[in-house]
Amino acid sequence: MKWSTYFIPTLKEAPAGAEAASHQLLLRAGLVHMLTSGVYSYLPLGLRVLAKIKHIIREEMGAAGAHELLMPAIHPLEIWQQTGRDKTLEDVMIRFKNKKGTAMCLGPTHEEIITDLVKSFVQSYRQLPVTLYQIQTKFRDETRPRFGVVRACEFIMKDAYSFDTDDAGLKKSYAAMYEAYTRIFARCGLKPIIAEADSGAMGGKISHEFLVPAPIGEDKVKDENGVEHASIEVGHIFQLGTRYTQAMSALYLDETGKQQPIVMGCYGIGVSRLLAAIIEVCHDPKGICWPAGVAPFMVEVLPVQAGDPETMAVAGGVYDGLTKQGIDVLMDDRDESAGRKFNDADLIGIPYRVTIGRRGLQEGKVEIKDRASGVVESVPVDMAVGHLLRLLIPAR
Amino acid sequence: MKWSTYFIPTLKEAPAGAEAASHQLLLRAGLVHMLTSGVYSYLPLGLRVLAKIKHIIREEMGAAGAHELLMPAIHPLEIWQQTGRDKTLEDVMIRFKNKKGTAMCLGPTHEEIITDLVKSFVQSYRQLPVTLYQIQTKFRDETRPRFGVVRACEFIMKDAYSFDTDDAGLKKSYAAMYEAYTRIFARCGLKPIIAEADSGAMGGKISHEFLVPAPIGEDKVKDENGVEHASIEVGHIFQLGTRYTQAMSALYLDETGKQQPIVMGCYGIGVSRLLAAIIEVCHDPKGICWPAGVAPFMVEVLPVQAGDPETMAVAGGVYDGLTKQGIDVLMDDRDESAGRKFNDADLIGIPYRVTIGRRGLQEGKVEIKDRASGVVESVPVDMAVGHLLRLLIPAR
Repeated sequence: MKWSTYFIPTLKEAPAGAEAASHQLLLRAGLVHMLTSGVYSYLPLGLRVLAKIKHIIREEMGAAGAHELLMPAIHPLEIWQQTGRDKTLEDVMIRFKNKKGTAMCLGPTHEEIITDLVKSFVQSYRQLPVTLYQIQTKFRDETRPRFGVVRACEFIMKDAYSFDTDDAGLKKSYAAMYEAYTRIFARCGLKPIIAEADSGAMGGKISHEFLVPAPIGEDKVKDENGVEHASIEVGHIFQLGTRYTQAMSALYLDETGKQQPIVMGCYGIGVSRLLAAIIEVCHDPKGICWPAGVAPFMVEVLPVQAGDPETMAVAGGVYDGLTKQGIDVLMDDRDESAGRKFNDADLIGIPYRVTIGRRGLQEGKVEIKDRASGVVESVPVDMAVGHLLRLLIPAR
Repeated sequence: MKWSTYFIPTLKEAPAGAEAASHQLLLRAGLVHMLTSGVYSYLPLGLRVLAKIKHIIREEMGAAGAHELLMPAIHPLEIWQQTGRDKTLEDVMIRFKNKKGTAMCLGPTHEEIITDLVKSFVQSYRQLPVTLYQIQTKFRDETRPRFGVVRACEFIMKDAYSFDTDDAGLKKSYAAMYEAYTRIFARCGLKPIIAEADSGAMGGKISHEFLVPAPIGEDKVKDENGVEHASIEVGHIFQLGTRYTQAMSALYLDETGKQQPIVMGCYGIGVSRLLAAIIEVCHDPKGICWPAGVAPFMVEVLPVQAGDPETMAVAGGVYDGLTKQGIDVLMDDRDESAGRKFNDADLIGIPYRVTIGRRGLQEGKVEIKDRASGVVESVPVDMAVGHLLRLLIPAR
């Protein structure tokens, strides 16, 4: 991708009101744009990171045997009345009446909807177990949206739901999701602390939270020395049991022909919130340092003098060489000052930067910088692509 | 994917009320599930087709130089009042007040939102042209939702917006989208008729509709002999000019330093509606015949006797051989009658079916069937994978 024809509107200063480091960097690096309090657009660079996160989630959920579907955002309120959660979640639920006068709402979560769906297809123990998930937009009427995409009114979640014949089955499905979650977060560059937690409005007995320590966190978390840390909840898994299936009569026939309630678990990841959690953990005073697994591009090619034909020829060669190998490369071909381009490169945080300047070229060399460590290597022009490919091997 | 652990809830009969062939097949083949009138879940097989369609759209939009972003679904009503479309679209716009008492709505389209976004970043002619698009969920309060996902209250659209300095630029951006649209629809197995159209609530002068002839179509369309055909609108592109940018003061500084309104175009594709349009065109009395570009799987492996070890060993070999080559394969490993499995295979419409049965295996052969043409070939077991790979070359 060439920066000059792309859309990365970086800002020198964070707009007023952005307190959290991640919120400031999301805005400054041109990743998101606020439409109104708690409601954001994801700009091309931010959307690329979201796509990488979604890809990791899909791979790991698939490997754990879960199948993806997509449920709607608008629901008849009646379905929520079946479990009484129209009341429990009243405070955050966005409601409206449609033209026919039917009471409707926007889904703040989907336990009732998936239970209704599974109920209409599953009759027998032979159809169980099954784990279904979606990556979908949720809506909550937050009184006080905060920290950018951390507590927003519209946000992206991965929500999975397991359906088993009994508690032993639920524990197995739960363990598979628990393992998948640790792999997903590790691939996103995070090592969350896993804590047993209160099940809150979800119901059920056992639940675990996945918490990323960060100064803006609204949850507290158990370190080995008993010190409390503020942390962001990036995932939460619940053994729901039969709370929803009994209330909604989602029953199956067991091997003896007797009707039993299906045993359920639910598993959430805050996808858009992960953007912020990753930045909270992976940044320095100059900007973001994307972990390789979720970086919007792996390499930034930075020709210092965009007007110099030799510089641009070498930059084009490195760009083409990497692109042909399937590497996501961004080239900052803008006719801007070197200072502006260096600052923007540090700000948007692509893992490797190749700087091509007239001074280096006089010695036949380009400079390769590791954004996170700051380590700089000077490499002969014709070895630059090969050297980068070797650096990138662990990340691919 | 193994059918026995997947989630394809096929139905023998279409539920009452589904008139259109596509609507019946979407329900019967386990592609979608209705939550309430005009509101659908996409089940795993349906979501796979949507993913293929989205992939094609992303490739072609990227090739045309457009960049993807993602705008929110909930908007402050105030932004729609700037152009007066809170009135024009009043009939279909879903509105609510948030807890703070602010009037909000769900986006039936996004011209105002993208104009507001671009306005906050683009100041100079040097930042133009730019074309941005999203694949996103839209909401419309339809009085009479019909034909399943064809006229729904919640649906997926690809909407692109071009921003140019002048009319000549707009015409160029418009032409690039026009060409991309013809490629997108062709890769989806469709040859829409392109008609000059009324710009309706969008405003602007020139617009073109992309119409797929189908009995359930609610639009009429110009054949060479002047005969009218009912057709489904799958795409619509508009030269908007300065209608939105003037109303919202989205201005740029031209080369002489003078402020000018940005010149805009917009370009829509009904992504979820395409599911129905493709099925309307590509089906026969037995079920769906997916075009290769959007098929949820390319090959279905059908072992007739799931209890027979030799049959299952051969089926497993074909399945593994194709999967290793990156082919999406579905294996119907269910312990069901041959008749049920054959009927389901015709219903869900995977392009190629490999039938492995005891009778064929006695001669060392398996049967390869082309779903659309019905042509059946008998092939030696050890040549099955190679033969299928050759058949699939044009589709890859």
